[in-house]
Amino acid sequence: MAISKIQNIFGFFFLFLIAQNVFAQEHPSLILTKKGVSEIRAQLGTVPLFDQTLVTVKAEVDAEILHGIDVPIPKDYSGGYTHERHKKNFFIMQKAGVLYQITEEEKYAEYVKDMLLQYAEMYPTLPLHPQTRSYTRGKLFWQCLNDANWLVYTSQAYDCIYDYLSKEERKKLETDLFRPFADFISIQNPHFFNRVHNHSTWGTVAVGMIGLVMKDHKLIKRSLYGIKHDGIKPGDRDNDGGLIKKPGEKSGFLANIDEPFSPDGYFTEGPYYQRYAMYPYLIYAEALHNLKPDLKIFKYKNGVVLNSVNTLLNLTDTDGEFFPLNDGQKGMSYFSRELVFAVDAAYYYGGKRPDLLSIAQKQGEVTLDEAGFTVAKAIRDGLAAPISQKSAEYTDGPNGKQGGIGILRIQGSKDLLTLVMKYTAQGSSHGHYDKLSFSYYEGAKEIFQDYGLVRFVNIEQKGGGNYLKENSTWAKQTVAHNTVTQNETSHFGGDFDIATNHHSEKYVFDDSDPNIQIVSAKEHNAYTGTNMQRVMALIKDGNFENPFLLDLIKINSDKENQYDLPYYYSGQIISTNFKYETPKILAPLGTKNGYQHLWKTAEGNQPGGNAKFSWHNKERFYTLSSIVSPEDQLIFTKLGADDPNFNLRTDPGLMIRKTNTKDTFFVSVTESHGNYNPVTEIAHNSFSNIKNLKIIYSDEAMIAISIEPIKGEKKLFLFCFNDPSKESKHEIKINNKEYRWVGPYQLINNNN
Amino acid sequence: MAISKIQNIFGFFFLFLIAQNVFAQEHPSLILTKKGVSEIRAQLGTVPLFDQTLVTVKAEVDAEILHGIDVPIPKDYSGGYTHERHKKNFFIMQKAGVLYQITEEEKYAEYVKDMLLQYAEMYPTLPLHPQTRSYTRGKLFWQCLNDANWLVYTSQAYDCIYDYLSKEERKKLETDLFRPFADFISIQNPHFFNRVHNHSTWGTVAVGMIGLVMKDHKLIKRSLYGIKHDGIKPGDRDNDGGLIKKPGEKSGFLANIDEPFSPDGYFTEGPYYQRYAMYPYLIYAEALHNLKPDLKIFKYKNGVVLNSVNTLLNLTDTDGEFFPLNDGQKGMSYFSRELVFAVDAAYYYGGKRPDLLSIAQKQGEVTLDEAGFTVAKAIRDGLAAPISQKSAEYTDGPNGKQGGIGILRIQGSKDLLTLVMKYTAQGSSHGHYDKLSFSYYEGAKEIFQDYGLVRFVNIEQKGGGNYLKENSTWAKQTVAHNTVTQNETSHFGGDFDIATNHHSEKYVFDDSDPNIQIVSAKEHNAYTGTNMQRVMALIKDGNFENPFLLDLIKINSDKENQYDLPYYYSGQIISTNFKYETPKILAPLGTKNGYQHLWKTAEGNQPGGNAKFSWHNKERFYTLSSIVSPEDQLIFTKLGADDPNFNLRTDPGLMIRKTNTKDTFFVSVTESHGNYNPVTEIAHNSFSNIKNLKIIYSDEAMIAISIEPIKGEKKLFLFCFNDPSKESKHEIKINNKEYRWVGPYQLINNNN
Repeated sequence: MAISKIQNIFGFFFLFLIAQNVFAQEHPSLILTKKGVSEIRAQLGTVPLFDQTLVTVKAEVDAEILHGIDVPIPKDYSGGYTHERHKKNFFIMQKAGVLYQITEEEKYAEYVKDMLLQYAEMYPTLPLHPQTRSYTRGKLFWQCLNDANWLVYTSQAYDCIYDYLSKEERKKLETDLFRPFADFISIQNPHFFNRVHNHSTWGTVAVGMIGLVMKDHKLIKRSLYGIKHDGIKPGDRDNDGGLIKKPGEKSGFLANIDEPFSPDGYFTEGPYYQRYAMYPYLIYAEALHNLKPDLKIFKYKNGVVLNSVNTLLNLTDTDGEFFPLNDGQKGMSYFSRELVFAVDAAYYYGGKRPDLLSIAQKQGEVTLDEAGFTVAKAIRDGLAAPISQKSAEYTDGPNGKQGGIGILRIQGSKDLLTLVMKYTAQGSSHGHYDKLSFSYYEGAKEIFQDYGLVRFVNIEQKGGGNYLKENSTWAKQTVAHNTVTQNETSHFGGDFDIATNHHSEKYVFDDSDPNIQIVSAKEHNAYTGTNMQRVMALIKDGNFENPFLLDLIKINSDKENQYDLPYYYSGQIISTNFKYETPKILAPLGTKNGYQHLWKTAEGNQPGGNAKFSWHNKERFYTLSSIVSPEDQLIFTKLGADDPNFNLRTDPGLMIRKTNTKDTFFVSVTESHGNYNPVTEIAHNSFSNIKNLKIIYSDEAMIAISIEPIKGEKKLFLFCFNDPSKESKHEIKINNKEYRWVGPYQLINNNN
Repeated sequence: MAISKIQNIFGFFFLFLIAQNVFAQEHPSLILTKKGVSEIRAQLGTVPLFDQTLVTVKAEVDAEILHGIDVPIPKDYSGGYTHERHKKNFFIMQKAGVLYQITEEEKYAEYVKDMLLQYAEMYPTLPLHPQTRSYTRGKLFWQCLNDANWLVYTSQAYDCIYDYLSKEERKKLETDLFRPFADFISIQNPHFFNRVHNHSTWGTVAVGMIGLVMKDHKLIKRSLYGIKHDGIKPGDRDNDGGLIKKPGEKSGFLANIDEPFSPDGYFTEGPYYQRYAMYPYLIYAEALHNLKPDLKIFKYKNGVVLNSVNTLLNLTDTDGEFFPLNDGQKGMSYFSRELVFAVDAAYYYGGKRPDLLSIAQKQGEVTLDEAGFTVAKAIRDGLAAPISQKSAEYTDGPNGKQGGIGILRIQGSKDLLTLVMKYTAQGSSHGHYDKLSFSYYEGAKEIFQDYGLVRFVNIEQKGGGNYLKENSTWAKQTVAHNTVTQNETSHFGGDFDIATNHHSEKYVFDDSDPNIQIVSAKEHNAYTGTNMQRVMALIKDGNFENPFLLDLIKINSDKENQYDLPYYYSGQIISTNFKYETPKILAPLGTKNGYQHLWKTAEGNQPGGNAKFSWHNKERFYTLSSIVSPEDQLIFTKLGADDPNFNLRTDPGLMIRKTNTKDTFFVSVTESHGNYNPVTEIAHNSFSNIKNLKIIYSDEAMIAISIEPIKGEKKLFLFCFNDPSKESKHEIKINNKEYRWVGPYQLINNNN
């Protein structure tokens, strides 16, 4: 007891010393530290990946030094010259600062100094950016967000050359540039700074980073806890229609950890924005770890900042590209600079997971700091272990109680099959209205795609590189996703305020059986009076070349509705087992809620039996077999109607439509089978192995689906919709035979 | 003189001896020889690529032996079981025969023997194949062509196990199977056998190969020179509408060398069919070289059989995929089995070009014969030199006087740019109506594509894997290609008989200047009363990131017409400098000649200046700048109308339409510029560098085109349309300034 007390006192005293130390700090201390830098200097030339990165970065910065400094008067949107120039400036300054520390060559410090002085010259008289699109216009850039980016990077550059500057130079920079800059993006723009949003993460981090370098308590506090009296009115919105602030919502950096991250490290806006936000979260966490260790930032909320990197890395296809949930640009991957930084930081600060080294190896570069140096040494020393992408469920919501994402992964004969089912909360202003939707991958190929966003990021010709109108009119709408739209209206009527109060409910996630992995969730609020539950299972059966996907949706409503379930496949139609008509003239499928963007390219129906639809993509065959009634319309669609600037991809889809229906099931199986090689011209296994799919029993709580293959044994899939307990016993009688099972689902052989 | 005479006599005697020897031949002697085999056996285990191929082939054949023999009653089209089984049987028999020779393991000989005896059992009572689509139905397969394939491979198997068989067994096989088989595909099917066509190449080779093994003079003669009285009527046609035989046309194997090959080794049907035909040409040539050396088959027509392999290898993009001229399936490449064989043969028999070894290395396998063995040894010994793909012109027609193909290649900042211009003869029944058309590649990416064929080769669900209706209604039509259609009617009215009597005329081909490579040709017959000339140049100018393509078409007619010039680009529209309207409802652009398949997705015009059209594809930007008048319609198209089975790809196009026009020019420049990386999200050089393109002078014979860049010096392109001589002097006066040059074209700086 006595010892413990002494320890406590000592601990307190120690913390006090550290706290003191913050404000008698040496430089650099934000990310690089004096100690770290001297270690790096001592081992230069012995750590290949680090040395290699150093060469690349030097070459890049040297070229810029040769090219000369340009600090133009801001004018353009993203993609335009002044935007790209200022953006490049902050990247290069940060790198030059680091190079100065590592190489001790003064030219790098001088370059940063000269550029900063030019900014300090310009900034005091700089008006708002002339482009007016943003809800919070910046000064260097058209939106405060980019100004905040600038400050996050530039703070590091300033820290690196702090000691190189004279006191007068520092004073000029802090007085004319950094303090007014920090105030501008915070107290002068509370709508930008004082919310929970990736914008505000950047904003708070920018203010905090420069605060730490300048030893400015007030800025650090503002950064961590937000502004008290921000004047934001309830109902104020951003450009995307996103609510700025819910009543009583906290703000500041810590609130931006609390709220968007679930305890599992899922970031509610989705992986694309998590990737974008990852950098400020981690860079500031590192700086706080170095300069305010009393905060124990890496332990905050059970270490979610570092854990979330592991979550993000698992939200990828086999090429490392992020699932484009919500607004996500396809192609963005763990090769991005943010993830290079995140992987190195997660390794160094987060328990040295050896599989992270393999990703770093693939990335082929490391950050020029202690984290990157440690990673490069570990790779040199052969510590890397293979990358593992696993089945996993990630809850959404600050407390993990707002639905989630279910990822099922199962090895096929050639590629890893990956199902991503979404049953999250709305996901803030970048959320899409797509409850219970999914995407499905074979390796890195999309079998069923999620559209992603409608935006050509940084391509000036396409609306300045910003979100395009079709992002709202198409990409966010329910019909743009592989889920059910009722009465041609999006979930929650496409109303953000309503949507943001709701989330789907997880029901079952089980990846424990090698032969069947399953995920299920419910949605009761997307349509008033209608309850939906989706069950998706990847089933392995030796008689099929690959595991197949069973997709079951149960809908119950208090009135008759039209239900549309589209499947956005990729590839070319090979065959169907039903007749369809192709129109002479193409008309849009509807007039609003995304339907206006779909050309109806054919329509058919299946008078008896399952509807089968086969297509071919990149040398592989796929078949969807679906239980339909003769009344169900089978509609072929092609995206691209009402698209006056050709902003949309022209992807195909197959939609199953049930009209005048109250309660119903959608049931289908999707197989990946065979292949076609255009060189050998051999088509192998180009036919489906599903003979018949049938609901042989259903009541309010239970269903039994018979899956009859052409080759192999008939299977019965049994499911209970209202009791997810693993212990509960169920029993149904079909044709006088009793079936008993334990837990919400069962798959059995059934040759009756 | 005396010595020479003695030599002659001796030579004659020697030939006589050889001729005798043919019919006292040992086995194997067709492709493998006793001497060659013993050399191979002696060096097994020392030649990695050969040994490796042997392991692969053994594994494949061993698996088939284990699986057991199946010789089913023929029933299916290609893609169906019996078709694929018989096809596999002949491939495996040939391989098993070779394995028997190389490994001396009897199980391989026994497998071939057992299978052949089953065929001999079945064949005598076999009726015509039940599927009726072909103009010459086979017995094992739905068309004689596949039966001929069978015999070409099986002859080799028979040769390999000849000595293993008893005399009785040989007699049974020859009486019940081989002779009736050879007669069936020749004298009983003269429409198949007795023409100049890839079908007949296979047919004559099949008959000749089995004739050589069986020492059957009559069959060999029939093979080489065709059937005298074939009963083919003038005007008889095949399934594709191709004329069987022109009056007085020769037939047999030698005629099939004479006619379809130009002296440059271009095969008139195009690379896809040349690839297919290559195997029988070469295999039979090898057999004749071994067994009838007096024929000097490898010297025949200046060695065209071997030279054509080099030509074919140059008709590829940077991935080795063949340009899909005429009916060509995209994706087919020098990785095909035919090209493995062709490359090895071309190396061994054709002068041992070291760059062929690099292709063989890429192929990763060799043929299991002396040619393959020699290639593998040369690779082992480090003799391989880099693959070279060059600019080249290949004439078409038996005498090289029927136009040709011009290929221009120039290195861009990242990739090789390749222009393929077509001004050939019709190309037999697989020809398309696309005079003066072109395709354009950046590396292996299509900037402007040729559609290729409409066929899913060997995919049973798509019309049994055969040519689909849309091949005629779309792919063969002029509007499907990047060339001019007059009055919405294809060249020659789409009439094969007329088209087949004509060809375009080459005008200029010059790849000697590193800064400008040029090709030009004329077409006077595609439309009566209309003369067209196209000039295409790849121009290198340091102010452009990449060389650009200048495209100039001169049209003169005796009446007013509508001229449509489509460009089938790949990718998504980024921007235009003109306004266009997108319709609410999509209608086809026309009613026939391919136009019925094009949806009109937008239409605009450019009231002043050039029309500029930019698109983005696979991370690269492209801009087409075109001289247009305000009256020109700029039509955006999308393929896929009138396509009831979704057989067509839905590719986009931009069409420039001039109506009510007699004489005119189409002039445009296409740039490849910049790139976009979805990971860094940086768009680099995304704008065109063309400021203005203008015809500043034109008369009947001359044109001067000013090319004014945004960055860099203005250029003047001068061209003379009616005198291709390199020595001719030309002079024009523009704005009182005189321009003089020598030869048909000149590119000069022009800053006036």
